[in-house]
Amino acid sequence: MEQKNLKTWAQCAPRLVAVAAGRDAADLVIRQGAWVNVHTREILTGHDIAIAEGRIAFVGPDAGHCTGPETEVIEANGRYMIPGLCDAHMHIESGMLTPAEFARAVIPHGTTSMFTDPHEIANVLGLAGVRMMHDEALMQPVNIFTQMPSCAPSAPGLETTGFEISAEDVAEAMTWPGIIGLGEMMNFPGVINGDAQMLAEIAATQDAGKTVGGHFASPDLGPRFAAYVAGGPADDHEGTCEADAIARVRQGMRSMMRLGSAWYDVETQITAVTEKGLDPRSFILCTDDSHSGTLVNDGHMNRVVRHAIACGCDPVVALQMATINTATHFGLEREIGSITPGRRADVILTSDLTALPIEHVIARGRTIAKDGQCLVDCPHFDWPDHARNTVHLGKTLAAGDFEIAAPEGANRVTANVIGVVENQAPTRALKADLAVHSGIVEGDTEADVAQIALVERHRATGGVTNGFVSGFGYTGNMAMASTVAHDSHHMIVIGTSRSDMALAANRLGEVGGGITVWQDGKEIAMVELPIAGLMSDSPASEVAVKAQAMVDAMQQCGCKLNNAYMQHSLLALVVIPELRISDLGLVDVRKFERIDLLEPSQ
Amino acid sequence: MEQKNLKTWAQCAPRLVAVAAGRDAADLVIRQGAWVNVHTREILTGHDIAIAEGRIAFVGPDAGHCTGPETEVIEANGRYMIPGLCDAHMHIESGMLTPAEFARAVIPHGTTSMFTDPHEIANVLGLAGVRMMHDEALMQPVNIFTQMPSCAPSAPGLETTGFEISAEDVAEAMTWPGIIGLGEMMNFPGVINGDAQMLAEIAATQDAGKTVGGHFASPDLGPRFAAYVAGGPADDHEGTCEADAIARVRQGMRSMMRLGSAWYDVETQITAVTEKGLDPRSFILCTDDSHSGTLVNDGHMNRVVRHAIACGCDPVVALQMATINTATHFGLEREIGSITPGRRADVILTSDLTALPIEHVIARGRTIAKDGQCLVDCPHFDWPDHARNTVHLGKTLAAGDFEIAAPEGANRVTANVIGVVENQAPTRALKADLAVHSGIVEGDTEADVAQIALVERHRATGGVTNGFVSGFGYTGNMAMASTVAHDSHHMIVIGTSRSDMALAANRLGEVGGGITVWQDGKEIAMVELPIAGLMSDSPASEVAVKAQAMVDAMQQCGCKLNNAYMQHSLLALVVIPELRISDLGLVDVRKFERIDLLEPSQ
Repeated sequence: MEQKNLKTWAQCAPRLVAVAAGRDAADLVIRQGAWVNVHTREILTGHDIAIAEGRIAFVGPDAGHCTGPETEVIEANGRYMIPGLCDAHMHIESGMLTPAEFARAVIPHGTTSMFTDPHEIANVLGLAGVRMMHDEALMQPVNIFTQMPSCAPSAPGLETTGFEISAEDVAEAMTWPGIIGLGEMMNFPGVINGDAQMLAEIAATQDAGKTVGGHFASPDLGPRFAAYVAGGPADDHEGTCEADAIARVRQGMRSMMRLGSAWYDVETQITAVTEKGLDPRSFILCTDDSHSGTLVNDGHMNRVVRHAIACGCDPVVALQMATINTATHFGLEREIGSITPGRRADVILTSDLTALPIEHVIARGRTIAKDGQCLVDCPHFDWPDHARNTVHLGKTLAAGDFEIAAPEGANRVTANVIGVVENQAPTRALKADLAVHSGIVEGDTEADVAQIALVERHRATGGVTNGFVSGFGYTGNMAMASTVAHDSHHMIVIGTSRSDMALAANRLGEVGGGITVWQDGKEIAMVELPIAGLMSDSPASEVAVKAQAMVDAMQQCGCKLNNAYMQHSLLALVVIPELRISDLGLVDVRKFERIDLLEPSQ
Repeated sequence: MEQKNLKTWAQCAPRLVAVAAGRDAADLVIRQGAWVNVHTREILTGHDIAIAEGRIAFVGPDAGHCTGPETEVIEANGRYMIPGLCDAHMHIESGMLTPAEFARAVIPHGTTSMFTDPHEIANVLGLAGVRMMHDEALMQPVNIFTQMPSCAPSAPGLETTGFEISAEDVAEAMTWPGIIGLGEMMNFPGVINGDAQMLAEIAATQDAGKTVGGHFASPDLGPRFAAYVAGGPADDHEGTCEADAIARVRQGMRSMMRLGSAWYDVETQITAVTEKGLDPRSFILCTDDSHSGTLVNDGHMNRVVRHAIACGCDPVVALQMATINTATHFGLEREIGSITPGRRADVILTSDLTALPIEHVIARGRTIAKDGQCLVDCPHFDWPDHARNTVHLGKTLAAGDFEIAAPEGANRVTANVIGVVENQAPTRALKADLAVHSGIVEGDTEADVAQIALVERHRATGGVTNGFVSGFGYTGNMAMASTVAHDSHHMIVIGTSRSDMALAANRLGEVGGGITVWQDGKEIAMVELPIAGLMSDSPASEVAVKAQAMVDAMQQCGCKLNNAYMQHSLLALVVIPELRISDLGLVDVRKFERIDLLEPSQ
């Protein structure tokens, strides 16, 4: 599938030249705005933009010579004309939306280019799933570039994914039209240790002349960081402090600073530019992960740029970080990222460069949103049945599947418990003294110890891995299940009631995945995510309402955590310390090894 | 032919990672210098650089962990460590040197990357000639990237080149390993008018993902300039004033500011950065044309950077303009242009960032020059006979070949005369009243009117086009001939004596091309240029001595012009007004049409 509705610059050149020279009339002229020039870092009032074939033909003080009777004219009336915004690194699946619905949600916010890593679906459906995301991406009226996922599984030997990604898969993907590079190379220990597969994936990407995304999630800026850089990743969005940002840029990487729904890494890093005065060209803004609620209520890249400005960054510099800097990084500076001849005509009109209201969005030369309303069709891919039926439980689960047998004759046991930490991705490895009834170890709501289970859902093995989790504060009889369960995306079920746990798990098996909350034997919330158990093809506004109802239901069950759903969905992420659960058992991520749930009796 | 002595980053990555991590020892460590970081625009004292496989493995305060007993150590002793310098646009032939000898001349000046347009040889030997230049380029110990020439002939219909370049040639060249883009698109009227061949050449380049070089030699910044930009050229080095530079960068082009042997366009344009404060990232330094004497006596890119600094540019910004800005423009920022991991280890040591003495030059990890001495072999291509024998006169010329017949019965005639203008490339269209003796029109040394002839040398037609030229000031009996005769490179012979003109022309036929000056029937200077009649494979120092002797000989014949040799070699350049001579006759470049030499009698 090739990019739709888009000719190359070369294909358009005869017409663009004729329009610029005044021999032909433009399709569209935007009249008399303030041209925000991200090449020179200037604001130039009183300029016109002429557009033909979806690309910029002319920018100058007067496009009268290329305005004909058939030319559509938009009056900028002195407003700022800024390039469409670029999100340099993000996961569409985090919005629980398909690419089409994600696009529809962010278009009114002025995002016209996205660099997306469909890492989640890769774990569920492998290369074929990546291809489906890629194909739907190319159908959209805005630019969605795909980064080929690099690490599925993220922790080989510690979990079983639906599919695995090989270096050969990466090499094949590099030949697809919408692939812009390699998705974040999360296996940084692998790169540092010279892991052959990781280096082969990077090599396939570099050999294709594309960009290797980085992910160095460690505060270590010594030789280990240097070794990672020497391996080839060209950017990193895992920095959290000014020193991280500076170190990355000094070493020739681009520092991607993120403001996601739950990531706040711009304010702490942008001081490298605003206070230390470093050349801003290597600093880039991104979101990484945005929930549907954020998209509906707060915005997308406009929210990030606005935030960067609020952090003290010059507005035009902040815009460079979301336009030309990104384009240059991915080798696309002659395609997107500035309002100059030949580029795709992606233009936003805004009357305030600080508050950044997104009043009019043009992509590829046509109006796609005005005043917060998306005015364009975002076509859906015809997702095949096997992408819609990915929850394979193998059997109907019963309460008994969640029973944890105590050692013969024990009355109490000491269990290893996953301790959730408020507002943090890492967990703590806790221990709890738990009662045994009829040979079964019981949770303890008084001590905030609930059960957690990882239910295998890719190969219908019927496997259930049981454990304990602390920190949610659940009370009464409840259960919550989600097929969003990073990174291998089995099903995480947490509950105080084993029968509710079985009901919740079976329910997700019926609907093909999503998130459900149960209380006293009744469903009190449901977010259907039929595509791969990860995404909805309903509009963001509907998904956001359901997601909010799900959060409300968690609170109704006693949960008092912020971002409790995110905590839930990350408890199988066996690359972040300290304790996680996978289909293979309980994992101590400090040592990257499996441990027993119950401590041997003294 | 692939690039010699150079592995890709991906090929080296396992070793680079191992070195950076401290598991393997580097090949070379540069200890304790001031790291000039062109990404952040910082100078960081007290840094080490570790190098392996010709690439940077590690940069940090201490490379002790990757220094082994076999590691070569160079003590920087606090000196600045700057990236090897890049010349963003240049013609090797202008140095009258082969790529190998050009490289040998510039290596001690710290130039480690050149972007070269072998436009001259393309006119003489066509695509095959470009390939020879390209192949010799890839044999060198420094990086010579080739821009595929775009315009041969430069003025179709007004001259006959040895070979012509087609859009198919361009497409073929884009598949060669050393081709970085399209050479300067000089036919800017063609682009503006939508000429199909010019747009096809640009399309072939863009489709290959490569960079289209520009050449917009006009002060017009209106719709004609806009139309040229819309056609695809991504840079331009023909700007001469601040407004030119600003207009180019605003439109998304890179402004290449040149300081060549005879070009002085940096001082007049760099104020866009130093005074107007524009983002410097889109400004780049280049030489375009350097004579061997400049290379021997003054320098190369070090001279340009030094000059930019003298013009008030911050030294690190000036270095960015000759390193990372250039690399980014050509899509090579992960290969060259900064001292960061993975890049080719091209490093200069200098003790002063303003005077910029080039004390130690390292390319691809080995020392190639110290204190002005080239310490490395620059291998010669085995130029075939047909590249060494390109002066095909078809016959031995005699004085009679330079006789200009007067109209029957005329005693005096009015002739159109090419008027050379001191220090300018354009000529003036003059008229002169000339005497007729025995039916032959005679020049007039009293009035400074000499004869000029364009001698066909590509197809042995024996063709001689005669005319008159004024401005050199030649006296006595003399002649000067040159096979450097832009752009089609036939032979230009100028003289006050027809017999000396014949002697000079025949002499160049014997030696296979070059430049020769004759006085009173004797040769008084000779620069042999055996390769295509354009280049010598002797060292620059020898060529520079001969070239200086040639200039001295011109003065000995009465010439008082500056750059008189350049004036001589440009008199067939039928794209610059007003009057030129070609193999097809006298050309009025104001109208792009041929005119008669002699005016009709009244």
